[in-house]
Amino acid sequence: MKNQYLAWIVFSIIIAFVLFSAFNTTEAGDQKDSFTMYSETRDIEGLKIAVNLAWTLLCGFLIFNMQAGFAFLGAGFLQKKNTLNYLTMSFMDFCVGALIFWAFGFALMYGGSSLASGLEKGNAFIGFSGFFLAGNAYDFSTSSVWLFHMMFAVATCTIIAGAVAERFKFHVHLIYAMILCGFLYPVFGHWVWGGGWLAHLPFGSGMKDFAGGGVVHGMGGVMAFVGAWMVGPRFGKYNPDGTPNIIHGHNLSYIALGTLFLLFGWFGFNAGSTLAATDLRISIIATNMFLSAITGAITVLYISYFKTRKSDTVMTCNGALAGCVAITASAAYVPHWAAVIIGITAGLILKASLHIMEFKLRIDDPVGAISVHGANGLWSLLTVGIFADGSYSEVKGLITGSGWQLLAQFIGLVTLLAWSLGTGYLIFFLLKKTIGLRVPVKEENTGLDLYEHGLNCYSG
Amino acid sequence: MKNQYLAWIVFSIIIAFVLFSAFNTTEAGDQKDSFTMYSETRDIEGLKIAVNLAWTLLCGFLIFNMQAGFAFLGAGFLQKKNTLNYLTMSFMDFCVGALIFWAFGFALMYGGSSLASGLEKGNAFIGFSGFFLAGNAYDFSTSSVWLFHMMFAVATCTIIAGAVAERFKFHVHLIYAMILCGFLYPVFGHWVWGGGWLAHLPFGSGMKDFAGGGVVHGMGGVMAFVGAWMVGPRFGKYNPDGTPNIIHGHNLSYIALGTLFLLFGWFGFNAGSTLAATDLRISIIATNMFLSAITGAITVLYISYFKTRKSDTVMTCNGALAGCVAITASAAYVPHWAAVIIGITAGLILKASLHIMEFKLRIDDPVGAISVHGANGLWSLLTVGIFADGSYSEVKGLITGSGWQLLAQFIGLVTLLAWSLGTGYLIFFLLKKTIGLRVPVKEENTGLDLYEHGLNCYSG
Amino acid sequence: MKNQYLAWIVFSIIIAFVLFSAFNTTEAGDQKDSFTMYSETRDIEGLKIAVNLAWTLLCGFLIFNMQAGFAFLGAGFLQKKNTLNYLTMSFMDFCVGALIFWAFGFALMYGGSSLASGLEKGNAFIGFSGFFLAGNAYDFSTSSVWLFHMMFAVATCTIIAGAVAERFKFHVHLIYAMILCGFLYPVFGHWVWGGGWLAHLPFGSGMKDFAGGGVVHGMGGVMAFVGAWMVGPRFGKYNPDGTPNIIHGHNLSYIALGTLFLLFGWFGFNAGSTLAATDLRISIIATNMFLSAITGAITVLYISYFKTRKSDTVMTCNGALAGCVAITASAAYVPHWAAVIIGITAGLILKASLHIMEFKLRIDDPVGAISVHGANGLWSLLTVGIFADGSYSEVKGLITGSGWQLLAQFIGLVTLLAWSLGTGYLIFFLLKKTIGLRVPVKEENTGLDLYEHGLNCYSG
Repeated sequence: MKNQYLAWIVFSIIIAFVLFSAFNTTEAGDQKDSFTMYSETRDIEGLKIAVNLAWTLLCGFLIFNMQAGFAFLGAGFLQKKNTLNYLTMSFMDFCVGALIFWAFGFALMYGGSSLASGLEKGNAFIGFSGFFLAGNAYDFSTSSVWLFHMMFAVATCTIIAGAVAERFKFHVHLIYAMILCGFLYPVFGHWVWGGGWLAHLPFGSGMKDFAGGGVVHGMGGVMAFVGAWMVGPRFGKYNPDGTPNIIHGHNLSYIALGTLFLLFGWFGFNAGSTLAATDLRISIIATNMFLSAITGAITVLYISYFKTRKSDTVMTCNGALAGCVAITASAAYVPHWAAVIIGITAGLILKASLHIMEFKLRIDDPVGAISVHGANGLWSLLTVGIFADGSYSEVKGLITGSGWQLLAQFIGLVTLLAWSLGTGYLIFFLLKKTIGLRVPVKEENTGLDLYEHGLNCYSG
Repeated sequence: MKNQYLAWIVFSIIIAFVLFSAFNTTEAGDQKDSFTMYSETRDIEGLKIAVNLAWTLLCGFLIFNMQAGFAFLGAGFLQKKNTLNYLTMSFMDFCVGALIFWAFGFALMYGGSSLASGLEKGNAFIGFSGFFLAGNAYDFSTSSVWLFHMMFAVATCTIIAGAVAERFKFHVHLIYAMILCGFLYPVFGHWVWGGGWLAHLPFGSGMKDFAGGGVVHGMGGVMAFVGAWMVGPRFGKYNPDGTPNIIHGHNLSYIALGTLFLLFGWFGFNAGSTLAATDLRISIIATNMFLSAITGAITVLYISYFKTRKSDTVMTCNGALAGCVAITASAAYVPHWAAVIIGITAGLILKASLHIMEFKLRIDDPVGAISVHGANGLWSLLTVGIFADGSYSEVKGLITGSGWQLLAQFIGLVTLLAWSLGTGYLIFFLLKKTIGLRVPVKEENTGLDLYEHGLNCYSG
Repeated sequence: MKNQYLAWIVFSIIIAFVLFSAFNTTEAGDQKDSFTMYSETRDIEGLKIAVNLAWTLLCGFLIFNMQAGFAFLGAGFLQKKNTLNYLTMSFMDFCVGALIFWAFGFALMYGGSSLASGLEKGNAFIGFSGFFLAGNAYDFSTSSVWLFHMMFAVATCTIIAGAVAERFKFHVHLIYAMILCGFLYPVFGHWVWGGGWLAHLPFGSGMKDFAGGGVVHGMGGVMAFVGAWMVGPRFGKYNPDGTPNIIHGHNLSYIALGTLFLLFGWFGFNAGSTLAATDLRISIIATNMFLSAITGAITVLYISYFKTRKSDTVMTCNGALAGCVAITASAAYVPHWAAVIIGITAGLILKASLHIMEFKLRIDDPVGAISVHGANGLWSLLTVGIFADGSYSEVKGLITGSGWQLLAQFIGLVTLLAWSLGTGYLIFFLLKKTIGLRVPVKEENTGLDLYEHGLNCYSG
């Protein structure tokens, strides 16, 4: 009954947050005469604020729809008996993740960035203002940045959920989702986007990650690697001689549909990252992302076809997603032809990474999250240093003849790897030694739906 | 063959509307030189109109996507043999509902509100201008308000469809959808949003329902209560001793996915209700709605878990929706910490209401619509009077030390209950005594898909 | 092993494009100091550009979601054994179609339109600037037009995919998708939208197709007709005496859901076609589209019901889509009452066309694409000439007392038919004589999922 205490602890922490928050913000009404908060805009500056606010929110809503994409995609990859478990994991991780990001994470990440009202305090390593979106952070500008970037934070958890699916304990997933969104993700995010030290590297324009190719996908993918490694492969995945078995997904149509919803949301993920429609680069960003996605898919389709004479649907979908990931750090900086090259390389990296995970490292990743998000997320950071053409924010990659940006990106990549592997190992190790990561093997065979949730996904 | 005549009547009414409309609007081209209608905007005031128009439309489109959410959600909750029936009910009710709302309902609701061109005539009890969006109401401003609020009207029907599913006659559902969207909903809506008497109560700021927590969800839920009660429980739901049986949904993955689509659309539902992006409150509204949704889900998950040691996916999804409903009337008025409290209370109310419906009143509600939308919709009205912090539109709840707004909300709640219960009972009673509400028990056992639609949803 | 060479050729062409493009655009950075490209807008003119850019992009994203609609819809109509095949066809056709439209198609279509930067060169018959979005076409304005209209181009392919499903070779579908998006569609599109000769007909306002009722849906539907005819009916569809058998779809819930996603995206398809939110007509467009969709659905529902006493879900969904198609060319020009009439006629045309295809011409169209998109796409062109009320862009139909516009529309219709039937026949004939259009009958019976993709869609 260890889980019982655990759940009580989680619930108590949440209640404590709320009470603290209520206490902390009863005087919030005081700021109510600030122009920015409620009144209609009156001049062109105000109208511009409204336009950019609407853009940020609408793109944020689109990113939320990626949760439907993750849900479809992951569910399709898994066995029937674990469908409900994955759906609940990927649903609840954004619930607890978003709540903790509201309470803590956002303040650690964007404190000191001065990106919106109430985010003044912070240093090069961590932020410390904006807790609970209270006080001066109770403002339309701060809520809008929170909403958009909360969607990023929770996506990181959902990426991990896919890699550890079909054998991971449900409540342990929620615990590390809270740790991730409350601390690990915000700290690294602060270094890159919150005015931290990586953003101010003295090489190139400092390390650049336009829409989270590294911060979100790289980190999620690397942590998924640690999690999948430490929880071990699914029972029956590997034979005694080390050769892998294929465990088919129960509904491949969900994979295709999930991919489409992810692409739909990804437009918001990338183009919305300007936080402004008045930054006219948004159409080039969206076009780059789409070009990279489709070439990723095409590359993987034809590679598979040449090898097997079959057109592999599932791989093709992952190829499109790999293309999206690989361009995410660089979508604003590179020309269209480079987006096509990046998509092709993403497909190649995906294939190579999947091979290494499955056959060399023998890490069991049911949905391919490590290869799609991790390997291509890291590659995404380098694409900035290689393909940036200097036409946006003065970011100049190798193709302009300068290697400094690539150096900055490489430092960012190494830091990301060190932070994610280090803290990821620590968290999963502690959880393994205390509560345990894995459901009993008997329950794994019966299916996690019955064990964790008490019923099956399909009936009748 | 009574249904045959019925269908002819419905169809004839529709044709009559169209002909009347055509006759009534042939001179519509006369207004075509009005600035607001077609030409490009030329100055900042025009640009502001365009920005708010785009915001309203895009949010309206998002709300339409909630129909996909309702369709998934409801279908997942039901037995395989009734899937098609529910999908067709929830599809066709917005078709006939929207058509009648175009012809009649909108004019009754917004006539006299002067919210857009051609909506001048109306009194405190009912509106009477804007029929068929014709005459002066043939204008971009009126179309945009119509499109947005039509989405609200038809959502009310779809809420009811879930509660009466698996035993209700298909064509009778369409008939009350027409009555609801053509008369019942618009009248109450007029009192709250069309410049009617509830909006002008001399307490607080008058009764406030920001985005339809009461008008849409409360009314839909209360009518669902009347409908589910009068049609009676599904055959086999209750044992002779009055104890209920659980009838499992046939595909719980549809429930999780439907919930995600509903949340996606709900951003538009709430944040779009400003009808203006220049009302910068939109980001606070969206954030509040999301915080309430996730705490609703978390609350229900842990309550269920403490009781049963299982993490109930289905209840969690309904918890998220209950959180959305409970904040819908108050999303613009309350601070973030209150949104969290509202989400928690929504979860508790959901659990209590489900228990009362299932075990005490023995009303069979297959999808939980009464508890999610009805109970929490009513609660939503009160949250305005309790948690409004005075930072928006001068609406001040108990937490600012004033009880007047709560009084106004309470009057609104009582009015809503009286109107919905009274007219709902009348409609369902008349339909029951004439055409009958319920399919024959033999057909109910075979499944409504075969009976009403002639084929099964799944084959092969 | 003919397919092997084929795939190599396709892949080589793609690589060649990319290299050419890279070579061609390395100097693209030169334009980077142009105002329009990266910097924030500074005055009202700049802000207006930003607003319209955001509108165009967001509507473009919505159109992308139609791919999810097509995927659901088509998959639901088909047999279980061909699900994966259709999903992969409809996924990959937009991948290869979009890539070729980036390289070639867009330049042929919009060159000479001067709609955005770098699109200056072209004549009345074809455009020739903007290849690879390179040179001067590497600009935010051009990317935005490309992104929006690429979504239109690829929709054409997906329409065809449905009509030829369950027996067509996968890679052959990709080949004609490339030909279609790279040449056939852009050429006709240039005549209508790229400043070509149809746009400048000396009758009425020239031929008008507001959002692609003819260009996209008409062309796609007519080509689907040619393809379905030349590939022949599915094995078992027709008995030796010529009477058709019904082949039920394997999951009708997918059809209802797909229809909802298509309607959701269709708002963007039509209202976005202004490419400007400052064109305030957008709300009237969206309202017209919705009114036509719902009356299409209602009409078909009741017609079916009167005949069979059953409420046909599948037909109703197609009725809604037929309504959308029929208004697509005219959504901006007609008053609301006409939209209702157009929806009713769309339902009637759908029923008639389905009957003719199934029983008279014996063309096997598993999803009804020819009737939904083809028949109603052609009708859509005429609706402009009949119902335009002169309130937008001075387009005046019969109801204003003038027949000139109808003449222009008729010429456009005949041209569309001639071009689509002619080139469609040529392409499908050549493909049939060389590679062959159809999978072996044995493989058709086993299912294309196993044959083309090596695994089944569902397992466990």
